[in-house]
Amino acid sequence: MTQLEQAKKNRITPQMKKVARNEGVSFEFIREKLAEGKIVIPYNKIHSPKRPCGIGEGLTTKVNANIGTSSDYSKINEELKKTKISVLAGAHTVMDLSTGGNISQVRRAILRNCPVPLGTVPIYQSAINAVKNNGSIAGMSENDIFATIEEQAKDGVDFFTLHCGVTLESVARLKNQERITDVVSRGGAILIEWMSKNKKENPLYEHFDRVLDIVKKYDVTISLGDGMRPGSIADATDRTQIQELILLGELAERCRKKGVQVMIEGPGHMPLNQIQANVLLQKRLCHGAPFYVLGPLVTDSAPGYDHITAAIGGAQAASYGADFLCYVTRSEHLRLPTLEDVREGVITTRIAAHAADIAKGIKKAIDHDAKISTARRKRNWRKQIELAIDRERPGKMRRKFKSSTKDVCTMCSEYCSMKLMDSAKRELKK
Amino acid sequence: MTQLEQAKKNRITPQMKKVARNEGVSFEFIREKLAEGKIVIPYNKIHSPKRPCGIGEGLTTKVNANIGTSSDYSKINEELKKTKISVLAGAHTVMDLSTGGNISQVRRAILRNCPVPLGTVPIYQSAINAVKNNGSIAGMSENDIFATIEEQAKDGVDFFTLHCGVTLESVARLKNQERITDVVSRGGAILIEWMSKNKKENPLYEHFDRVLDIVKKYDVTISLGDGMRPGSIADATDRTQIQELILLGELAERCRKKGVQVMIEGPGHMPLNQIQANVLLQKRLCHGAPFYVLGPLVTDSAPGYDHITAAIGGAQAASYGADFLCYVTRSEHLRLPTLEDVREGVITTRIAAHAADIAKGIKKAIDHDAKISTARRKRNWRKQIELAIDRERPGKMRRKFKSSTKDVCTMCSEYCSMKLMDSAKRELKK
Repeated sequence: MTQLEQAKKNRITPQMKKVARNEGVSFEFIREKLAEGKIVIPYNKIHSPKRPCGIGEGLTTKVNANIGTSSDYSKINEELKKTKISVLAGAHTVMDLSTGGNISQVRRAILRNCPVPLGTVPIYQSAINAVKNNGSIAGMSENDIFATIEEQAKDGVDFFTLHCGVTLESVARLKNQERITDVVSRGGAILIEWMSKNKKENPLYEHFDRVLDIVKKYDVTISLGDGMRPGSIADATDRTQIQELILLGELAERCRKKGVQVMIEGPGHMPLNQIQANVLLQKRLCHGAPFYVLGPLVTDSAPGYDHITAAIGGAQAASYGADFLCYVTRSEHLRLPTLEDVREGVITTRIAAHAADIAKGIKKAIDHDAKISTARRKRNWRKQIELAIDRERPGKMRRKFKSSTKDVCTMCSEYCSMKLMDSAKRELKK
Repeated sequence: MTQLEQAKKNRITPQMKKVARNEGVSFEFIREKLAEGKIVIPYNKIHSPKRPCGIGEGLTTKVNANIGTSSDYSKINEELKKTKISVLAGAHTVMDLSTGGNISQVRRAILRNCPVPLGTVPIYQSAINAVKNNGSIAGMSENDIFATIEEQAKDGVDFFTLHCGVTLESVARLKNQERITDVVSRGGAILIEWMSKNKKENPLYEHFDRVLDIVKKYDVTISLGDGMRPGSIADATDRTQIQELILLGELAERCRKKGVQVMIEGPGHMPLNQIQANVLLQKRLCHGAPFYVLGPLVTDSAPGYDHITAAIGGAQAASYGADFLCYVTRSEHLRLPTLEDVREGVITTRIAAHAADIAKGIKKAIDHDAKISTARRKRNWRKQIELAIDRERPGKMRRKFKSSTKDVCTMCSEYCSMKLMDSAKRELKK
């Protein structure tokens, strides 16, 4: 039985207990929200990740790190290092988006070394196999698609991105809509290429029950992909995007009825002033399903800094109720990320998630900030660094610039406001 | 006559014309908003900055870079390099916050080399002189304070941060309020130290007309400092902060009546969900005076990454109407920033400002994003990089990872969604 089915039957699983303890909420809270489809716990027993997590309403905002090879760079060891560094930096989940080298081998190696839930996008592998075996993406058979899904589920993948909302209907909307960047989802573009050449409906939509039958066996959580997500500010919140979201809402209902855990993926590039409406729309159209956003990137104009454009949008999205932030690295739009890009991407996204958790009123986040600020007030540098989201960097930075007295930093030196206030406060208390 | 007096008399100055042209608005728009006190043009004729800028309602969001020595690090050349790098990276103004070495010499050197408006915080110099000459901050005389303000105005400084709202009244509020970080403004702490030891009112408040007489002569714009700004999430939007803001609103009225240009400084550390209310409060209490914010930093927990915590808050604040963002570097809370920190701080804050400008509906910002996304869609890498907010970094990053075909990047290689869509779209059009 899936976590969702057990929750519906009033059963509390060990995974629900673990999640409840981590979050500081009751077992019953997790069970109830899971039964309502407002929380998911991606957990495939074949993988049995040591550190499962809950994603959804009332929980801390989670962070995903995307790794994986491309046909230009495909070394297994490099991907294992990225997995390790992601988890060490605090990613709650990892997605293997490999499209180069021996994809099954890469995935299995990562699964063996990944203590957190692992996600994939199976259509990549189906497409690559089709190019290899049949010469083109269009040559991919429906059976190939389902066989890949089953293979990956059997390997232990905990959640799948499936672009089921890329349909004849949403593609028709795309044709009627002037977009600058058309489709920027790789999975979406693969399916549109297949659909347009074969003049057929998306098999992941047409045979959605077949998808559900496979994933249910392994309790793979479905993450309904947004193949039509806007890839530029100008394309945000357009008819194409919202049409797909309507379809995803319908499919989410079908998942829940069948006992399959589901979350919804969201944009993408989006101006700051559209984020709140988008979160509200997703929560309404998908009846409170967890919202998993990529960014949103609040401007198109900062290649080299998209970890920051995404953190600005992600913090805001999560503060309004998005549950799960996919990191974006500074390499986005430019290249495959380096190890350092991966680490920085996770840290930056954790900062956005934490800022949102404070705004969401999550006590443990608010208490944490009070603790670090108390250490700062006392000029307890050791403790301040110990409580930092990244514990490595601040210490290194501080050690590089030595101050003449130990209790201040070189920014203000003797004119440290904290130190001046120690003196003034003694006077004020008289 | 000051810019404000001329605007009130229906005169359009060359500076107003320059600002109007840069912003793509009419001369009359600038004049009218200036007369209403909703726009300022910091411009001291003695300095006559080559690149003046307008700050306020209806204009693009501006970015300030703080530089300056401390008693631990005080090299003039380093500060000149910081000035240059700030301006090259796109800062609209620079503030010299020096507290080490020969402060007058540093300031004059920067003024000679600064094509944008320069700001200072005169109380720093008064305090340092007092420590040197009279042994303590408390030994600073009222005449010293006003003499420093006049000296700096005569040197050509274009705007002054003056912490006039740190008064017996707001300090009383501070005493009644449990704060974690008390006062984190250096200027605020200096004044409180002086007030508490001398049992006297803040001279910048008590003799505000004397302040106005000096700055008016040189048309130095006053930036009313928030000496009581919250230095931690827990302290945000408390009675102390809002009490000071009320006082600043009253003082802003007095500035305008006297023909002195004025803007208002704002926090600080602040949870995401309090930013909108804070901008609204400032705009109401200060009758639409330009709002100059330091961050806000949306969490206390990310030392080493405070350029990012500030960009998250700054983008949001500006999207709600804040007009002027003071950069924060990743060195905040840890050390004096390096040259690289300064450059990165300016770029990051410009990203936040640009994202806000899109949300504010500023056409030139929206058009810019459409242009870069069109280049991206066409896989025109040269143009994409040319249009980037930072033109240096993306090119370097891309050159480091060569892709096998020139028209894609190593992230997706042959599975580039843009490239796939070229093929699919040809099919869809049939």
